[in-house]
Formats: sequence, C-alpha cells, structure tokens
Amino acid sequence: MTALLPEGLRDRLPPFADAAAAIEARVLGAIHAHGYERVDPPLAEFAEALGTRLKAGALHDAVRFVDPVSQRTLAIRPDLTAQVARIAATRMGHHPRPVRLSYAGSVLKLRASQLSPARETRQIGAELFGLDSVAAAQEVVTVAIDALAAANVARPSIDFTLPDLVDTLAAGPLPVGPERLDDLRQRLDAKDAGGVAAIAPDYLPLIAAAGPFEQAVDRLRAFDRDGVLASRIAGLTAIAQTLDGRVAMTLDPTERHGFEYQTWLGFSLFGGGSSVEIGRGGTYTVVHEGGAEEAATGFSLFADRLLGDPPVHDRRRLFVPFGTRAADAARMREAGWVTVAALEAGDTPEAQLCTHLLADGEARAL
Amino acid sequence: MTALLPEGLRDRLPPFADAAAAIEARVLGAIHAHGYERVDPPLAEFAEALGTRLKAGALHDAVRFVDPVSQRTLAIRPDLTAQVARIAATRMGHHPRPVRLSYAGSVLKLRASQLSPARETRQIGAELFGLDSVAAAQEVVTVAIDALAAANVARPSIDFTLPDLVDTLAAGPLPVGPERLDDLRQRLDAKDAGGVAAIAPDYLPLIAAAGPFEQAVDRLRAFDRDGVLASRIAGLTAIAQTLDGRVAMTLDPTERHGFEYQTWLGFSLFGGGSSVEIGRGGTYTVVHEGGAEEAATGFSLFADRLLGDPPVHDRRRLFVPFGTRAADAARMREAGWVTVAALEAGDTPEAQLCTHLLADGEARAL
Repeated sequence: MTALLPEGLRDRLPPFADAAAAIEARVLGAIHAHGYERVDPPLAEFAEALGTRLKAGALHDAVRFVDPVSQRTLAIRPDLTAQVARIAATRMGHHPRPVRLSYAGSVLKLRASQLSPARETRQIGAELFGLDSVAAAQEVVTVAIDALAAANVARPSIDFTLPDLVDTLAAGPLPVGPERLDDLRQRLDAKDAGGVAAIAPDYLPLIAAAGPFEQAVDRLRAFDRDGVLASRIAGLTAIAQTLDGRVAMTLDPTERHGFEYQTWLGFSLFGGGSSVEIGRGGTYTVVHEGGAEEAATGFSLFADRLLGDPPVHDRRRLFVPFGTRAADAARMREAGWVTVAALEAGDTPEAQLCTHLLADGEARAL
Repeated sequence: MTALLPEGLRDRLPPFADAAAAIEARVLGAIHAHGYERVDPPLAEFAEALGTRLKAGALHDAVRFVDPVSQRTLAIRPDLTAQVARIAATRMGHHPRPVRLSYAGSVLKLRASQLSPARETRQIGAELFGLDSVAAAQEVVTVAIDALAAANVARPSIDFTLPDLVDTLAAGPLPVGPERLDDLRQRLDAKDAGGVAAIAPDYLPLIAAAGPFEQAVDRLRAFDRDGVLASRIAGLTAIAQTLDGRVAMTLDPTERHGFEYQTWLGFSLFGGGSSVEIGRGGTYTVVHEGGAEEAATGFSLFADRLLGDPPVHDRRRLFVPFGTRAADAARMREAGWVTVAALEAGDTPEAQLCTHLLADGEARAL
C-alpha cells in the first residue's frame, strides 16, 4: 500500500529522470542564449493575489490551504506564468523594457482533466515583457522553436491563431450583437458551420481559412475585403518568414479554446506527428499595481511531453573493481567517466548496469 | 499588495536564479559521476503513507489537503529522502544492491522554524541503498565533499557523530536504566556536564571527546577501555583517511539532535566558516513492504545555502542592434554567446545590461 501514489502523481525513475533533467537543461540553455534570465517564484502564494493573475476559474483547480502564520489562504501554483507576470509587474517593474525572463518549475493541480491526466507537471518557458509587436512575436517564436530543437523534438510544428479576430470583426465590418458574440466564438472554434450560419453567415469563410499556413493565409486575405485584418495578416506572414523551413506551420484563425487571455496572436507547438500540444504561447496583457497595462509575449512548454519513449540517454557506466585505489577512480571521473565502485568483493558490473570495466588503469567495453 | 509573499516564501530573481540553477547542475553532475542515477518523486503523496517514512512528527510540518479524487488526505513533501527510500524499497526493490539514487527538488513546510525561516527549500542529495558499511560511508562522504567542491564551497568542513553511541554503551559496559537513557542522551548532546554527572558520571569523558578529529578520536579511544567502540573508531578513522587533506574534520560523538534516525554514523557539512549546516547525512535503515529492513547511507544538501552572496556568475550579454539579420545573431549564439536583440530602434545595450555589442559581425566589449 505504501507504494501506491495518488492518481495523476507519479515517480520518475532511472534512466528517465536523468533524461528529463538533461532535456530541461538543454531547453533552458537555448532560451538563455536569447538573453532570457531565470526567475524562480515560490511553490505557494497568497491565493487571492495569485487568483487575480490566473485565468478565470483556475484558482479552483489549485491546491489551497490555510497558512498557520498569516491565517490566510495560500495556493500551490497551478501555473507559473501568473507568477512570472507578477514579478515583471512588481519587483522588476522598474527595469527597462523589454524584460526577458525564463522559468522552469513544477505546477500542481487539485484535479486532473481528461485531456491532461497528470496533476503535477513541469512547466518551462520564456516571457518578454513590454512588447507584443511583430518583432517581439518573431523573437519569441524563434526561441520556442530553438527550445524544441534543443529537446530533439522530431518534426516540430506550430499552429497559429488570432484570438481577438472575432471581436475585431464584430466591432468593425461584420457587426454581431454582444449577446450573440460568445456563442459565435464557440461555434467558430468548434468549426460548426451550421451554427455559424444561423448566427452570422458572413463569418462562414473563416472556417475554411484553417489549414496549412500559406493556403489558410491566402483565404484569410481574400476574406478580409475591408482590410481590417491587414496588420494581423502582415504580422503572421512576417513571423512565418522568420521560421521558414524550420518547422511545419498551420493557421487556425478562429481557434480560441485556451487562448481567451491572448491578444492578437496565439500559437500551439506540436512535435513527433502527435496531436498532443507540447507548448503554447502568444501575446497578452499584464496588469501592474495601480492598474496600468503592459503588453507581453511568451510561451510555455509542458516539459513532460518533451520526453520521448524510450529517451535518448547516454548511460555509459564504468565499473570500478573492489579494492581499486580511490585515486584511480577519481582520475576516470575527471576524464568524464561515470564510475560505479564495487563496495564488496561480490559486486559485479552486470548488477550495476555497467557498460565498461576499469582494468589496468583503462576502461574496457563489456 | 499583490507583490507581497507569505512569510518564508520568496522569489529568486536574476542573476541569482540562474546562478542557483548552475550550482545545482554542477552538484548533480558531481553526484552523477559516482553512478548515482536520478529519481524524481511527485510533490504530493498520500499523507499517511508518507508519514510512515518521515521522522516522528514531521507530517505535522507538512502542507496537507483533501484529495477530491480519492477523498483521502495528501501531503506536500516536507522532505525528499522519505520518498527516495520509498522508491528504493518498492518500485526498485527488485534491483540488485547496492542501488545508488540521486535527487533534487523543492520541499515545502507548513511552518518555518526559527533556525530555518524558509518554508520552501531545495533539497539535493544522494542515497546508497543496501549497505551501511565503512566502504559505503567512505563513498558517500567522498560524494558529499565532491558535491561541495562542485559548488565552490569555500573551506568545507565535516563534523562526524556516532548517533547510537549512548545506546551501545548503555547496553554494554556502562549500563543506564531505560527510564534515564533519553535524559542522558539529551544532556550529553547539550554538553551539560553537571546533568551527565548526576545521571551517569562514567559518561563524562565523552563530553571532552569532541573537537578537532584526531584529538577527539584519541580521547574516544582512551575512553573505550572495553573495546566496545573499536569497530566504530576504526570506521571513523578509515573515513577520515579517505578525506585526508580535502576538508577540515571534527568529531562530536554524542551529538544527537537531528540524527535520531541514523544508525552508527552521522555527519554534518559546513562551509565558508559559517556555523549554519549546509548538508547532513549518515547511515540509516529503510523498511521494505512486509517489514524487512535494509541498511542505507546517504546525504542531503540544502541547496539554498550553497549560494554565496554575491554569486559567482558569468553574465556576458551581447547586444544585437535593431535591424541586424537574424542569421547573424544565430551565428553568435552558436559560438556560445548570449544574444539580446533590440526589437525597437530605441533599445540600448545599457538598458539590456549588455557587456558586448555586435558590430561588423564581431563582439566588441563595452
């Protein structure tokens, strides 16, 4: 019974834990190379304050407890970006913009969802505070694709969306009453042509403007007779040029689920031909103390989904026979070897999963 | 108000978070080089099961919450070694011994103590399951000192103790009634000569057998007229020889606080001339399912105490002027540079804390 873990929580064992740590280090290195410096917020915060920066309802998914010190409710973070935004807006609020921050840490949810059964996941990401321009998006998307490359993600792909597209059109050339707007958004997101036709048939061509990037952008451009989307289309095209050839690209301009808090741009990251998202990002708004708003652009990766199975992991281990002088083993470690010393006469290279044996001062393959 | 964090919880900001991550990576690398493979247990477990492997009372210091899935109480880990012992005893119970495991992760306490005001700390360590011999202790102590060296800890020192010393003497040549044993242990731990004299004056010389290693061991040897401590003294001497010259060594044979669960050997790690412990370890016993017991030896470091102030951290940043071709910046990253791109015409190397400027394809120091 003591071996049993709660649903959605798990141990990571050898060699997977080392492989995951190695991948995380490479991903963070790729992000760091673009000037994103690490911040490390605490596991728990005051629930109320954290809730103001989380998506609506997200606090209900957080583990909460009463702090015996302050007698207030604390929450274990269900998401790291809310904390990083807090740091950018408060403790680093005086720093010249843009501010580039990176992070990696565990997040915990009270309940798992059907789509993501893990309750504890590892989140890695980068956020650029102060800009949501095309140049900012080009950089952030480049960092994201560099991060996937560092993790050896096969066949990376990116799916773009325009989260405020329907709002923009409804406020301009294709008016929709506010009471029907949310319904329209949902039906477009669901590609429900009948539903869209019943509410606002003018929006129907948007459903066809999804798919491989070039073709979808062309359809979006044809749809945009009034030019109200021109800057967005130009931005998407510029971002796509930045990534040209590095990654497969698609556009789903009305996808909205999970992008409710993004402004003009959102994107999902995929790899290995899987339909399971391994990361997402986009442009958004951060609220400073006092209420001032600031543009931001960033992305997060779900680190657990970066680890293929079986992992690519070098597990060379040098068996050091019982009685070998300590200095001889130390010399092999200095030369880069992982040494596994026999501490009893009966220990064997096989029991210790060793690939090599130290004999006559040299490593011999087994 | 949203910037305020609960007492004992804090943000780590640039450049400290990167420096801490770099130190942690080096420490884990030193541990890995001795064949210790990483395990990564979850943040939360069933409280009752975790409690059976924690020190008495430690579960009261853990954040607990009711799991809506199982309707059972879960606890956020206040310590990682209990989880690593669980893994060794259950999921890796079939693995040939010894099993060498390493770990690094956050632990959370409901309350801070006066001695350690942080409620969230980062624990790094290594545990060897299957042995508590002198050879095992020699290896584990070597790994610990290698880890301190990897963290650039200045003037490392190690303080040894013999946690079951009083029990051993009381069961042998210097009988003490069980009703007075705990009191004697506490007074010896507190170096309370008057108190010890009132309970069992024969134990008084032990108070003087504390201090610089060689001198203290000599006094302990002189005290041990019956030779009941001979194997312990020989073990200590052998361990000291392994470390000879690498680290300052002391012996405090009756220190007991925090070592209640250790068997024959315990040790504390210090550095930089500070009296604040930066790690501890020793030999102990792991209970398998079914009740079988297994010897183990290991140590943990309190990672937050490894970070000096100010941290030694290379922060070379190359400013990439606005309008530079993306490929030029990518080439500099490939050459090992951290690039910080201007995304607007007005951005400056000073605002981005850059040390170098990319000009005519070369990095120029600023």
